[in-house]
Amino acid sequence: MPRGPAGGARQADLREHNLAVLAQTLFASDRPLSRADLAARTGMTRSTTSRLVEDLVAARIVTEGVAEPGRRGRPALPLAPARATVVGLGLEANVDYVAGRVLDLAGEVVAEEIRTGDLRGSDPRDVLGELGELGAALTRPAGEVRPTLAGTVLALPGLIDGENGRLMLAPNLGWSDVVPADVLGSETVAALGGSVVLANEAKLAALAAATAAPGRHGEQRTFVYVSAQVGVGAAVVLDGHVMTGPRGWAGEIGHVCVEPDGPRCGCGARGCLEQYAGKRAILANAGLDADSRPADLLAAEHTAGPSGERARQALDRAAWALGVVLAGTVNTLDVDRIVLGGELAPLADRLRPVLLAELTARVLAAPWSDLRVRGAGDDVALATTGGALLALRTVLENPARWVPERTAP
Amino acid sequence: MPRGPAGGARQADLREHNLAVLAQTLFASDRPLSRADLAARTGMTRSTTSRLVEDLVAARIVTEGVAEPGRRGRPALPLAPARATVVGLGLEANVDYVAGRVLDLAGEVVAEEIRTGDLRGSDPRDVLGELGELGAALTRPAGEVRPTLAGTVLALPGLIDGENGRLMLAPNLGWSDVVPADVLGSETVAALGGSVVLANEAKLAALAAATAAPGRHGEQRTFVYVSAQVGVGAAVVLDGHVMTGPRGWAGEIGHVCVEPDGPRCGCGARGCLEQYAGKRAILANAGLDADSRPADLLAAEHTAGPSGERARQALDRAAWALGVVLAGTVNTLDVDRIVLGGELAPLADRLRPVLLAELTARVLAAPWSDLRVRGAGDDVALATTGGALLALRTVLENPARWVPERTAP
Repeated sequence: MPRGPAGGARQADLREHNLAVLAQTLFASDRPLSRADLAARTGMTRSTTSRLVEDLVAARIVTEGVAEPGRRGRPALPLAPARATVVGLGLEANVDYVAGRVLDLAGEVVAEEIRTGDLRGSDPRDVLGELGELGAALTRPAGEVRPTLAGTVLALPGLIDGENGRLMLAPNLGWSDVVPADVLGSETVAALGGSVVLANEAKLAALAAATAAPGRHGEQRTFVYVSAQVGVGAAVVLDGHVMTGPRGWAGEIGHVCVEPDGPRCGCGARGCLEQYAGKRAILANAGLDADSRPADLLAAEHTAGPSGERARQALDRAAWALGVVLAGTVNTLDVDRIVLGGELAPLADRLRPVLLAELTARVLAAPWSDLRVRGAGDDVALATTGGALLALRTVLENPARWVPERTAP
Repeated sequence: MPRGPAGGARQADLREHNLAVLAQTLFASDRPLSRADLAARTGMTRSTTSRLVEDLVAARIVTEGVAEPGRRGRPALPLAPARATVVGLGLEANVDYVAGRVLDLAGEVVAEEIRTGDLRGSDPRDVLGELGELGAALTRPAGEVRPTLAGTVLALPGLIDGENGRLMLAPNLGWSDVVPADVLGSETVAALGGSVVLANEAKLAALAAATAAPGRHGEQRTFVYVSAQVGVGAAVVLDGHVMTGPRGWAGEIGHVCVEPDGPRCGCGARGCLEQYAGKRAILANAGLDADSRPADLLAAEHTAGPSGERARQALDRAAWALGVVLAGTVNTLDVDRIVLGGELAPLADRLRPVLLAELTARVLAAPWSDLRVRGAGDDVALATTGGALLALRTVLENPARWVPERTAP
């Protein structure tokens, strides 16, 4: 309920608040709810609930299904998130690809595209121009389907000044001080739903990993998500919430130290995790081409002779370095579940034994912990899902904005 | 305001809630407030505010002063936290001392005592017995002053199972699996205010560092607090709140790795920060006796010849190791202020240059950050202040419990 400066309840904006509570309650549920269910869960009266549900249906945020056949009495119509009505767009520029993905309020992928390519040292104008076109193409109405775009979130592998929509530094792209909205231009931004919000790719991927559907937490609510492409980022998820840090720069685990006198990193320091467990570092250590895939690594280690041995050592070294650094994260934050994403996801089973052994040796609370390491699945562009989810979050935070004006009866 | 399962407002317990809002608003203020100020800040009516303020005065939580002389009209009486009426007790057993401190609601120290001694390998029964007596002596009514003890919090340097009031492991004390309430016995627990809550000493010290007075944040709201005695603990404070971690075991920074092949630690791993920046490690590296003080170290480094050089190197090594590990903390959590507490506090000025240089080299966001390192002051037993504050927090969370039953008029 809206409150005064220090907690006194006010009446103003009560409808907006209650609309949001109803929408969030419905979306948080893992099954459709009836109006009566919603009234019971929110503590609102049946008549208030019904009036507000009609607003949510008119806003195309909620759909009301048909009654189950054979039930007696007044039918309890199931309410559920609407499909293909309001959508969010996630875009991503990363070192090896650009990607876009459109999600609807039910969490279904409406459209997506991933284009691989080497973006090191690329011109941000070219890449952002391509992403603008990609986004416009993905959200263009097709046939009968005319969803409304709630907004766009752009995932980038670097430090972001969210307040000013500015990428400060993306070391592996070679980009610094870029304001994508300026590069895209107001017309493109308007076509992308009126806003292009920037966010760090690891945090968006972690948001996706922590989310079952828009407005609904996944099963695993507390974990460290490690997102490795060429760079290595991370995000700590506590009880379903992604920690961003006071300025949004949390999660730069790729630059946490493994060995103080280790290999020189692009950031200028020595022994950063990225130089052991980043994609290019593993491939270089294994003696493989920079455009090899995780599957190539797994295959290489089973070849006979020194090249197999080299691949094996490169993988063990990555697992060990991840263990050293993540043990520090676990000791510092008391989170005992690790999720490996991006290029590390397909390697998770291979890396697990060495990584877990290092964690077990170094985590003080290991004897009382259930340390686990798993892969995030094979979705390389998980950050675009996170971006689309973040764009859709604005709808659930203020559904009132989406309710059409009532015409006089 | 109390709410239904998913946010609908209920009327029940409204008085309890409003009492807490009023008390918390008053305590959060850095100056006395009048009833009118409180009504304005909370959005409650003047008459509700007045009625509840009288309850808080009757509960001895708030005092109402005299009007400023010379002011016209109805006098605005200043309300402030009560002194020496309701108190909290913080106790601490650490490797080199036991301590107790009593704080009142105004944040004044009513009584305290610190007893130094070597507690390595001590019997928990002896130490807890001594602490029980110390606590009873500190809270015994003296003359006219008869404060009520709200509760006791016991600070310990280890992993704590708060739910079951159990110390799982305190490596440097050599204690494991201790339930202090059982050791103390129900009579002593009753004398200590009816509850003895356990908490980690670094987190309590950080709480004290983040707090200006009971219920009021200090100036610095976001920082990493490093608490070094023989062991090294830490606590991350985000916007005034101490991060505990899902199970309460966050902050074990003493076991974060500096060098994977570094010196063996008591925890079984190699290269833990404690082996570089813990009190005994620095003294051993400097070639000084284990019971030397920080001042001895600073003096030793200015002696001529190899012993001076050895002390200098030990201090530089501690600063460097703190920099390597804290750079990881800053990269992971985006917190750019470091507060050095415990035995490191008097060394902060000495350690700062090397520590800051390492942070600057290793923190990715360093160019946009205001990295700072400061000492926490010379209060070795800061954790006892944190414990007393935590005990007093229960008063502000539910002041209604302290309001005497009204007798019929």
